[in-house]
Amino acid sequence: MIQIDKSGIDEIYTMTDAIMSVRKALVMHEKGETQIPVRTSLDIASKQGTCLFMPGMIESMNLIGVKIVSVYPGNAKKGLENVPSEMILLDGETGYVKTIINGTRLTEIRTGAVSAIASDIICPANVKKAAMIGTGGQAPSQIEGLLTVRNIDTVNIAARSHEKTIAFANEMNRRFGKRFGTEFIACKTVEEAVEEADIVTTATTSKTPVINRGMLKDNVHINAVGSFRRDMQEIHEDIIGDASFILVDNLQGVLKEAGDLLIPMEKGIIEKKDFSSELGSFVSGKKKYISRGGVTVFETVGFGALDLVVANDILNKFESKI
Amino acid sequence: MIQIDKSGIDEIYTMTDAIMSVRKALVMHEKGETQIPVRTSLDIASKQGTCLFMPGMIESMNLIGVKIVSVYPGNAKKGLENVPSEMILLDGETGYVKTIINGTRLTEIRTGAVSAIASDIICPANVKKAAMIGTGGQAPSQIEGLLTVRNIDTVNIAARSHEKTIAFANEMNRRFGKRFGTEFIACKTVEEAVEEADIVTTATTSKTPVINRGMLKDNVHINAVGSFRRDMQEIHEDIIGDASFILVDNLQGVLKEAGDLLIPMEKGIIEKKDFSSELGSFVSGKKKYISRGGVTVFETVGFGALDLVVANDILNKFESKI
Repeated sequence: MIQIDKSGIDEIYTMTDAIMSVRKALVMHEKGETQIPVRTSLDIASKQGTCLFMPGMIESMNLIGVKIVSVYPGNAKKGLENVPSEMILLDGETGYVKTIINGTRLTEIRTGAVSAIASDIICPANVKKAAMIGTGGQAPSQIEGLLTVRNIDTVNIAARSHEKTIAFANEMNRRFGKRFGTEFIACKTVEEAVEEADIVTTATTSKTPVINRGMLKDNVHINAVGSFRRDMQEIHEDIIGDASFILVDNLQGVLKEAGDLLIPMEKGIIEKKDFSSELGSFVSGKKKYISRGGVTVFETVGFGALDLVVANDILNKFESKI
Repeated sequence: MIQIDKSGIDEIYTMTDAIMSVRKALVMHEKGETQIPVRTSLDIASKQGTCLFMPGMIESMNLIGVKIVSVYPGNAKKGLENVPSEMILLDGETGYVKTIINGTRLTEIRTGAVSAIASDIICPANVKKAAMIGTGGQAPSQIEGLLTVRNIDTVNIAARSHEKTIAFANEMNRRFGKRFGTEFIACKTVEEAVEEADIVTTATTSKTPVINRGMLKDNVHINAVGSFRRDMQEIHEDIIGDASFILVDNLQGVLKEAGDLLIPMEKGIIEKKDFSSELGSFVSGKKKYISRGGVTVFETVGFGALDLVVANDILNKFESKI
């Protein structure tokens, strides 16, 4: 059995690879060729934790697997990840378990890629200023994804702890500054970070909105990555209410999990028909995006088909190198 | 992450170990401390295959895991196992995936152990003659389990192919003949194999009964291991109808999956109350078995708690050796 850890992924698999993989997965989803059963969740009361088992299949691509995601809020205190994860891939030809791939990195990369694909479809070619709210595990891949599809001059960063924001901006400057010709600036407030931004990415686990319409430019695109439960809301409903276009990665998933859209729906601000477009329809060419300006929102909760295709492409690259 | 394959298990973990592990698991199940959600199944139409994802948890023992079982009938032609399996164990303290253990061997051993525990409770101490119907993957562990709890002089073996039966009897003589002082005899027919047997184990995947009451002695115990679907039946309903005692490993599981009991139930031969005893009640000491002679049946379909405890005990032994 092949094991590929975080550094193993980073050595062989680039954001450009991930964008290609995720585009394939979105098209398979659009064609109805993915089979993603309801995930199983086990609550570990004594740890206030949850273990999620997320099986999935794309039979026409011979892909079968299960992602295991544990949410253990107490891990950070032990110097461990709060959300450790592994992706198990089976051999579709034989049913044998063939690979175990670090699911944390896989999820970060595929989420960065899916936002990049949405930004590439929605944002004008000449956007220059971005803002990143949140400096957690998802943030670097969100930034790398965006910089892969657009020439961004500055990325303003804001998060709850300014100290962490400074450290994160420094790290991003080291990792991506020269490579993409981009400057990363630690801002003291979210307002300061987003006020001139053409693109704002939110990757927090906030239950109360971190941005509202008044903070933003007239024309702005938002990638909302953080909200993955009904009670989570990163984006104020006045943004959702004002949006000229709302795009989602997976309609079924968003309707189950994305507080960003479910809360305004409950309040009667939007209806389901206001966000009936899935990213896959645009990637496949079935739909074409025509900009109406104003504020646009991409809401992503992720889904198993992305994990399957990305994991398999990582494995293929791994096998071609040995 | 630790990987333990078949030979890794065989090097460190004995049938006696498995009997201890399974007893613990049965008691935890009896106490209601196991949490085993409904398994997820994915049908792979093009391969006439199925992949099963079976998560489970025993929180009080800090055990969380998922067993992946693939049923791929075409594998044998490729020289592969028809039912490959892996057991993934998480660290209950942190949610990290920590071990991947060969699920095929694990299942064989724990099923052998569970039958051994049932035989030990039900069978008189002085039984001497056993019969084994079926020579597949489960058979060696069934035999080893039984020989671990009873001094058996002869094990008669029968299966569809007499050639395979001879080869299997030879293999069993090599592996267990001297160790247990037991002789293994390849019989040409099931009738011949079972007619003098005190204990009969059936481990086939038959849809039609392989034994009926007329073939058997007045006093005989049967371990029925093979039937794991509603349409599978190894034991004729005249045995079930005549049984003085029917014991099961897991009531809920048997009521969902064991054709051996479900078919006679549908025919009105028995009712649910006729097999309301779970093995765990006897292992925990809550109930005591008092023999009424005649024919007794133990029906097992297996369940996640057994896998969890056995996997964890294998891991513990593995870690204590390195």
